Amino acid sequence: MIPALHVIIPAGGAGTRLWPMSRAGRPKFLLDLTGSGRSLLQQTWDRLVPLVGASNVHVVTGVRHAEAVAAQLPGLGAAGLVCEPSPRDSMPAIGLATALVHREDPNAVVASFAADHAITSGPEFDDAVTQACVAAQAGYVCTIGISPTGPSTAFGYVEAGDSLGLTDAPAASVVTRFVEKPDAQTAESYLASGRFRWNAGMFVSRADVLLDHLGTQQPRLREGIDEIASAWGSVAQREVLERVWPTLTRIAIDHAIAEPVAAAGGIALVPGTFGWEDVGDFSALTSLAPGGAGTAVIGDTELVQLLDAAGVVVASGGRTVSVIGIDDVVVVDTEDALLVTTLGHAQRVKEAVDGWRARDREDLL
Amino acid sequence: MIPALHVIIPAGGAGTRLWPMSRAGRPKFLLDLTGSGRSLLQQTWDRLVPLVGASNVHVVTGVRHAEAVAAQLPGLGAAGLVCEPSPRDSMPAIGLATALVHREDPNAVVASFAADHAITSGPEFDDAVTQACVAAQAGYVCTIGISPTGPSTAFGYVEAGDSLGLTDAPAASVVTRFVEKPDAQTAESYLASGRFRWNAGMFVSRADVLLDHLGTQQPRLREGIDEIASAWGSVAQREVLERVWPTLTRIAIDHAIAEPVAAAGGIALVPGTFGWEDVGDFSALTSLAPGGAGTAVIGDTELVQLLDAAGVVVASGGRTVSVIGIDDVVVVDTEDALLVTTLGHAQRVKEAVDGWRARDREDLL
Repeated sequence: MIPALHVIIPAGGAGTRLWPMSRAGRPKFLLDLTGSGRSLLQQTWDRLVPLVGASNVHVVTGVRHAEAVAAQLPGLGAAGLVCEPSPRDSMPAIGLATALVHREDPNAVVASFAADHAITSGPEFDDAVTQACVAAQAGYVCTIGISPTGPSTAFGYVEAGDSLGLTDAPAASVVTRFVEKPDAQTAESYLASGRFRWNAGMFVSRADVLLDHLGTQQPRLREGIDEIASAWGSVAQREVLERVWPTLTRIAIDHAIAEPVAAAGGIALVPGTFGWEDVGDFSALTSLAPGGAGTAVIGDTELVQLLDAAGVVVASGGRTVSVIGIDDVVVVDTEDALLVTTLGHAQRVKEAVDGWRARDREDLL
Repeated sequence: MIPALHVIIPAGGAGTRLWPMSRAGRPKFLLDLTGSGRSLLQQTWDRLVPLVGASNVHVVTGVRHAEAVAAQLPGLGAAGLVCEPSPRDSMPAIGLATALVHREDPNAVVASFAADHAITSGPEFDDAVTQACVAAQAGYVCTIGISPTGPSTAFGYVEAGDSLGLTDAPAASVVTRFVEKPDAQTAESYLASGRFRWNAGMFVSRADVLLDHLGTQQPRLREGIDEIASAWGSVAQREVLERVWPTLTRIAIDHAIAEPVAAAGGIALVPGTFGWEDVGDFSALTSLAPGGAGTAVIGDTELVQLLDAAGVVVASGGRTVSVIGIDDVVVVDTEDALLVTTLGHAQRVKEAVDGWRARDREDLL
């Protein structure tokens, strides 16, 4: 265990591109997409509890999902669950959780990890977190950036500069800049340079450092968070939360802190060489599938019959599924909605969602 | 109406290639495959009642389907429904119905039509039946053969010889032979010759002529049928039927009568130029789809969203179906089984059925 380290898991985002498995009321992080028997949130928990202990894990989620989160994580406890009255992007969520941790332990280090990424746990992950903690103790906000496996245009990138020269964090370097999703040519040049990592939204920082940056970059947001944190646990908690929360600036931690602080040399990077997948759409599931062959069967495999069908993604919602003579097809079967598309069109699932909305089928969204 | 004409509709056959829409307990003829709101059996009824009157229509079906047939055809009446204790192919079914008709009206003409073919009703159909009746009155067993629209290898063929020279049936000719499903090259030569028609299993004959042929070709089968027909309507009906029926030769009318009698010059042909489709597999549905464009949506179209998906067959079983970016796909959704295949592989549906049988999922068959 890493002393004084607290984990913050912002559990939000619908994951529209995984519709109809994911829905507004059943977001991606609550789903078992890898056939492991554990949801992405549960896998995140399983990966981090050994590092920090259950009592140092904090999940920030919307009121709508609090019950499901508590049910999936019986070890979390009420104190570890922070409910957002409404979604206001990642900075308010991480900021409030950081302020609450800081109130209890002024020397705490906080590490935030998305609830809905698939990560291969093991020594490489633990090592990256450990080195990031060293950089954090040195005063940096440290991101863990994923070593690219190809010139992806689906992710933002982080550019590494000089090494920090930290003995216990030999892989840590300063970040020169964060860049948004590039075009294909730029992505190729990033990959060729060897200096860029994918921005996976993992940030490790001393709580006081993060709050100081927040105060400098977004003073009004910091004030609101402090007001809520001060009232937390008192009789006024609910009143203050419900009054102040809706006034907080809706902003991502990338824009609020990572980008401006990087420009000032305050962000560090530790490369992550562990397996990582943000499960952005159904085609991602083929690489997570156990058993390989690029075919992912989610749900009871006894219910799925594949005849002459390679590289497919099939999710059974309880009924039998027979696929004959189609490669690269995506079949997602749920109680009220069936989706059939291809790996190549998996990014277009949102169009179907939009179509049902236009037909007034809000019940499907 | 054509005087003295009785229609016999053998309603059997599971239609395995339309699984999972068709099942052992819900065969093809009970399904509405064309989106008309009427099953194939009901459409057969609708087409024939104007020609012969409801009281001259006789449906022969298995005990398992009698209730569903009666429910779909409220105009049929108990007298028109002949229940087979077990399936013994078409000759026993048609033979018994013919014997029952003949007992009531020795001058009757009988015409048998499959319950599960899609036919465009109208003057061309009525004219073909009328001319076939003229040939039947002249003592022939007359088949209505479909004018081929291509060199199909999926059907048997009937070869026309010389005209019968009947004034009121100018299109009627003698049949030189029936041939089984040909290979592609042979089918091409049949098409080129102009003499061949598809065998659609439509036979029109005087009842006494058909029974005479049966007595000559299959004397034991004729005896069994006569024994059952004699007891029909008496207290002994059930006992005789259940005792004798299982002993009847299991044979199709094509082999029992059509082929041997053709060799002796006793079969006539009237070409059918009406629209005809035996709905052999899901790909056939694209040509039956209302609205054209080769896309067939079966069930509530409000539940189906096609984005960039042309020439597809989608059957919704009540849930919503979204198809994105796949052409030529077949999606058949039912309560307990979902099938995804392509038009090109539609003939392979039986493999899925075999697979479920091998997994002891008899409930799906």
